[in-house]
Amino acid sequence: MTELNRQITLLSRPAGRPCEANFRLVESPLPTPGQGQVLVRNHWLSLDPYMRGRMMDVRNYAPPVGIGEVMVGDTAGEVILSHHPDFRPGDRVVGALGWQRYGVAEGEALRKVDAERIPLSVHLGAAGMPGVTAYVGLTDLCAAKAGETVVVTAAAGAVGSVAGQLARLRGCTVVGVAGGAAKCRHVVEALGFHDCVDYKAPELRRRLKAALPNGVDCLFDNVGGEVLDALLGRLNPFSRVTLCGAISEVDNPSPHGVRRLLPLIVNRVRVQGFIVGDHRARWAAAIDELSGHVASGRIRCHETVAEGLAAAPAAFLDLLAGRSLGKQLVRLE
Amino acid sequence: MTELNRQITLLSRPAGRPCEANFRLVESPLPTPGQGQVLVRNHWLSLDPYMRGRMMDVRNYAPPVGIGEVMVGDTAGEVILSHHPDFRPGDRVVGALGWQRYGVAEGEALRKVDAERIPLSVHLGAAGMPGVTAYVGLTDLCAAKAGETVVVTAAAGAVGSVAGQLARLRGCTVVGVAGGAAKCRHVVEALGFHDCVDYKAPELRRRLKAALPNGVDCLFDNVGGEVLDALLGRLNPFSRVTLCGAISEVDNPSPHGVRRLLPLIVNRVRVQGFIVGDHRARWAAAIDELSGHVASGRIRCHETVAEGLAAAPAAFLDLLAGRSLGKQLVRLE
Repeated sequence: MTELNRQITLLSRPAGRPCEANFRLVESPLPTPGQGQVLVRNHWLSLDPYMRGRMMDVRNYAPPVGIGEVMVGDTAGEVILSHHPDFRPGDRVVGALGWQRYGVAEGEALRKVDAERIPLSVHLGAAGMPGVTAYVGLTDLCAAKAGETVVVTAAAGAVGSVAGQLARLRGCTVVGVAGGAAKCRHVVEALGFHDCVDYKAPELRRRLKAALPNGVDCLFDNVGGEVLDALLGRLNPFSRVTLCGAISEVDNPSPHGVRRLLPLIVNRVRVQGFIVGDHRARWAAAIDELSGHVASGRIRCHETVAEGLAAAPAAFLDLLAGRSLGKQLVRLE
Repeated sequence: MTELNRQITLLSRPAGRPCEANFRLVESPLPTPGQGQVLVRNHWLSLDPYMRGRMMDVRNYAPPVGIGEVMVGDTAGEVILSHHPDFRPGDRVVGALGWQRYGVAEGEALRKVDAERIPLSVHLGAAGMPGVTAYVGLTDLCAAKAGETVVVTAAAGAVGSVAGQLARLRGCTVVGVAGGAAKCRHVVEALGFHDCVDYKAPELRRRLKAALPNGVDCLFDNVGGEVLDALLGRLNPFSRVTLCGAISEVDNPSPHGVRRLLPLIVNRVRVQGFIVGDHRARWAAAIDELSGHVASGRIRCHETVAEGLAAAPAAFLDLLAGRSLGKQLVRLE
């Protein structure tokens, strides 16, 4: 094979907000799989907020990407060459092969997926890591019960959209929070949330109060900051808050934060920060249930697709800025 | 009997910080116990931060004190007259009889205590509600284990002083946070904490970092605000934060709050707000263990005592302002 691999590497660490100049598109020879390894042609690259953290050389739950290294990321693709007994050419697989067209992985690090039942790309979204995040956060940590009121922030995003739809399927009243009227319409009309509050419009606190006449039992938060602060005032006794993300703090030198914690005490609230990678034992059950919901249409998946690896950096910046809707993907050429 | 009762009632709700003018000292006839009731002569009144909330007519976990009603509060005293088979004159009892010299309660609402093993007043402190608060927060909610680092804020207070001493007895490394050099000396020298950080001195973040070389596994917080915000940056993976109080938010129109929640996610932190009244099933075990520690000298109790019921309002304001050390009590004349 004379075909070349194309990769996006981290050229420099951002000082402040990241920009396209922090990334570099490079060409390299195709990698060669060793014993037990598999060569994969990636069709889809998933872009996710956690990647912002990996660009920095700071204490985190995972090591940073080194300068000159390929950016980390989940991918879905097809096996080209296998030196592992469980995989054959043509198998559809999901793995963490990074921002590149071809990658090599240990067989044990790949997950074979069924691209007939649901589209391959959905294994990176509603039936992949973001979906499992929504599932674990809502089911295990929020422990949302039928009849309760669930609020999901960043409701139009990859995780929030699934969390809210799952909560609806569990018999909860679901109110989303999203940025802008168009996203809010999408959340209610396409995703079936009972209501959605636009955090960018004036009088956020008054509108949250109006949308939540019975208070909040579960809060699945992806944003932090002013929105979270306002929601804490609406929490019911013994409510649960799952902290999944804090996008409002990312690249924000003076985040608003949460000004009053007394509501957490008065209402005996449990707040749990979490990383989905700690919950490996739940993945199989989560993906099974989520795949069924997607296949039957009970959970709808919206995707924002950037075309070609070279478009990945700009698409990633769009994601961080809240300009994408649903799951942000890159279709690899 | 011609003796009169003396009571302190709520004259008006505070607009802003409370002041002595919000309270009124009144005289009234001695109350008469009905069937199943007991007349108690209170020797000690406990002053606690929660009373600030009861002065306001706002949503809370307990109803507010009405205007003209006796202020709520725990008391320790002696039975004068009993129409309940379990109590006899001379029995030492603890109850919630309020800011008054005499009170009547249902027998079921009183707890007989042993004032020989430990002093009567300690049943309002280290072996009473504040002690149980420390016990439940540290044992059940923080789940502090030997070898872990525990931080306790308001470390010189009624709850914090017990929480820290209990943590030390459990084999933890205990670092207190308190306001002022004198309190910090007390926390280390009298209470046996391993270290104490003065939050009023400059460079709080640098000094917290220096005092916590192994980070924080359990944080028992009574203050909130800037101190809590700084401590969140020192939390270890899978650490636990117990929110017991947020005195920095009380009568503060623009509280500092917690500016960054990302550390809670990155480190998968569990934060639990709590009210000790929800944990009635644990009181007997807690008081038994705490009484033993006090009797043997393993837990030391410092008390700040105001003399006479008329001194209660000023002593309460001192408590809110952080001017008392250890348990704030009023000795009733």
